[in-house]
Amino acid sequence: MTRALSRRALLTGAAGTATAAALGTTRGLTAQGPDTTTSPGPPSSELGQRSPHVQLTRGRTPRGTSSRTPLQDLHGTLTPADLHFERHHAGIPDVDPNSYQLLIHGMVEHPIVFTLDDLKRFPAVSRVFFLECSGNFMGRNAGPETTPQDICGMTSQSEWTGVALGTLLREAGSNQTATWLLAEGQDAAVMTRSIPIHKAWDDAMVAYAQNGEPLRPAQGYPVRLFLPGWEGNANVKWLRRIEVADRPFMTREETSKYTDPLPNGTARQFSFEFDARSIITTPAYPNLIQPGWVEIRGIAWSGRGKISRVDISTDGGKTWEPSRLQEPVLSKAHIRFRHLWKWDGSETTIMSRAADETGYIQPSRQALLEARGRRAKSYHLNPITGWVIRSNGQVFYREEPRW
Amino acid sequence: MTRALSRRALLTGAAGTATAAALGTTRGLTAQGPDTTTSPGPPSSELGQRSPHVQLTRGRTPRGTSSRTPLQDLHGTLTPADLHFERHHAGIPDVDPNSYQLLIHGMVEHPIVFTLDDLKRFPAVSRVFFLECSGNFMGRNAGPETTPQDICGMTSQSEWTGVALGTLLREAGSNQTATWLLAEGQDAAVMTRSIPIHKAWDDAMVAYAQNGEPLRPAQGYPVRLFLPGWEGNANVKWLRRIEVADRPFMTREETSKYTDPLPNGTARQFSFEFDARSIITTPAYPNLIQPGWVEIRGIAWSGRGKISRVDISTDGGKTWEPSRLQEPVLSKAHIRFRHLWKWDGSETTIMSRAADETGYIQPSRQALLEARGRRAKSYHLNPITGWVIRSNGQVFYREEPRW
Repeated sequence: MTRALSRRALLTGAAGTATAAALGTTRGLTAQGPDTTTSPGPPSSELGQRSPHVQLTRGRTPRGTSSRTPLQDLHGTLTPADLHFERHHAGIPDVDPNSYQLLIHGMVEHPIVFTLDDLKRFPAVSRVFFLECSGNFMGRNAGPETTPQDICGMTSQSEWTGVALGTLLREAGSNQTATWLLAEGQDAAVMTRSIPIHKAWDDAMVAYAQNGEPLRPAQGYPVRLFLPGWEGNANVKWLRRIEVADRPFMTREETSKYTDPLPNGTARQFSFEFDARSIITTPAYPNLIQPGWVEIRGIAWSGRGKISRVDISTDGGKTWEPSRLQEPVLSKAHIRFRHLWKWDGSETTIMSRAADETGYIQPSRQALLEARGRRAKSYHLNPITGWVIRSNGQVFYREEPRW
Repeated sequence: MTRALSRRALLTGAAGTATAAALGTTRGLTAQGPDTTTSPGPPSSELGQRSPHVQLTRGRTPRGTSSRTPLQDLHGTLTPADLHFERHHAGIPDVDPNSYQLLIHGMVEHPIVFTLDDLKRFPAVSRVFFLECSGNFMGRNAGPETTPQDICGMTSQSEWTGVALGTLLREAGSNQTATWLLAEGQDAAVMTRSIPIHKAWDDAMVAYAQNGEPLRPAQGYPVRLFLPGWEGNANVKWLRRIEVADRPFMTREETSKYTDPLPNGTARQFSFEFDARSIITTPAYPNLIQPGWVEIRGIAWSGRGKISRVDISTDGGKTWEPSRLQEPVLSKAHIRFRHLWKWDGSETTIMSRAADETGYIQPSRQALLEARGRRAKSYHLNPITGWVIRSNGQVFYREEPRW
């Protein structure tokens, strides 16, 4: 692909002109801004700040009830900790790490209380995983001026460090007939969720660090449950209690909330794992593009394992081509896809479609609507997203029929 | 290893006592601090802040000329962007992204100027790499109260995103007989370094993002050169010019500085690649440990490729055992090693020793001193670091003979 660019195809136009103009001057660089070479700048910093020219918080807290990651402004696969999405049920508690305790009790040989220092002494694990809110779909009534952040900015990615939950259950002597756990947070909602115990023996973590540093309060400081690939709400923040049991607890957040009513009058419950999804983050609203080579970029992820491929359509879904996936492709992680496309300047729609290693393929909105029915709430929706490229280069969200 | 912990060996003592005390009360949790469940906390935040209970900047700017990463306080493999090490030669310039330009000229068919938008339009790449200052060794005169940050806090790790330098050279039509590049920054030092052109055809990047977000000014905003595995100084920040040539330019920073005088009166010059190194980050000064199971943790890295193993000695270097390396083990990246050790309470010294896929093994200080001689400056030093565990559990830097 880079070979195709070596004949200056990509920069024909604006940059070519700039070159001609600028190279007539000393070193070709007098078109630059203020000369920064004549006097020293401020010294090494205690905390490196963002450039005042960088704006990343636009639209981040659209209604005050959540904070969304600015997907269209980010590169690569990681989310800075302060831009991680947030969704709280009773705000952010201030937990004192010195008096923090985690109780494990119920069907165990030895009920036990861990301090934060206790947890840090256990063998640790560090893994890069995405986290996502179950309600991460804003497409019900979205107009053309809708950004990737608006549509699915409630997914973010970090390197999480903590202790395997299985290690703590072994320490407490979890009963072999136990099948479920209750996880309880110490926020004012006292968030409680039931978790199948097999997740603890698989990859669940009790996490105390994110992207190298201690968790931030908005992410559960000092300790949260982390369930790779499972809906955000079950990843209980400010975790204070785990009760081992042989049944689910049927808490509010898994009965009246976070279930999926189906057309036949029943409901999907305990649908923890996220289905594979992808979104093109550039070009997307509010980008403006020019005819010629365009790198289509975005992220894809699956709660069930590794993304196996992301196909791109540049003709509204008629034909699809595989994109390049940035290595390493990690399991239950956002991966970055890229696809070089030569836009001829005519109006079209671009779309991405993810598949994962289980063979699951991201559905169209229509297919999802038929499967879930019109009573579906906003949870666990992962339709293909399209972006309309107008012939003037403006990019808009492709509107869909109302749900 | 976790099996060894399942008999509560790890928590015998303090936590056991706390458990007994706490479980006599309702839910076992009244030993906790202020009740956080009675009133809601603050809502979702525009930027997630650190907990006021977390202190990460202690000792970060020991002398104002550099900022060091608090290795002993971090987990996993990534460095938060604001805690990345800094070393500037004339402070931090404020570069306006709208007038920013990068000139590529010299032995090229088409001298060319790229704007920031131009650079972002090229096919992008995102990779996790360490970055390190050549002078990242503070052991000349270090006393026992020396932290991992003091010894080698001028190495950090990020996911870097940018365009391959080779792509830009192809765009400019780099002459096939060219062998070197000059890279020039727009700080007040006008930092310049000569780079062998083969690095551009290998993995050199022109980077504009770090850990998902735009570079921060202290890291070269809007654009820096990034040379995976090569000494920090050559990764020119605030990059404004690349000149293609057939000779090195012999700039100040590669003649009077960043060379290594040798015992025979000659000097190593252009020693770009970092040799393999490791350091135990916990337990380390100022930790206090207790007898029983201790997980020894640290980071290891090599400028030449992947770390193949990190061996741990808990008897002052007499015997060595392999540690576990956190997957995925990436090339030219910090990797996290962990080793479970049962401390019997007697005084000893613990050490780590990294090896990389080229077969290189991290040397002792004595071996390094013999190879480099007493005239060696502080550059490119990577000796094994030891930590003395006193019988009272206090951990101190193992002092070494003066260089």
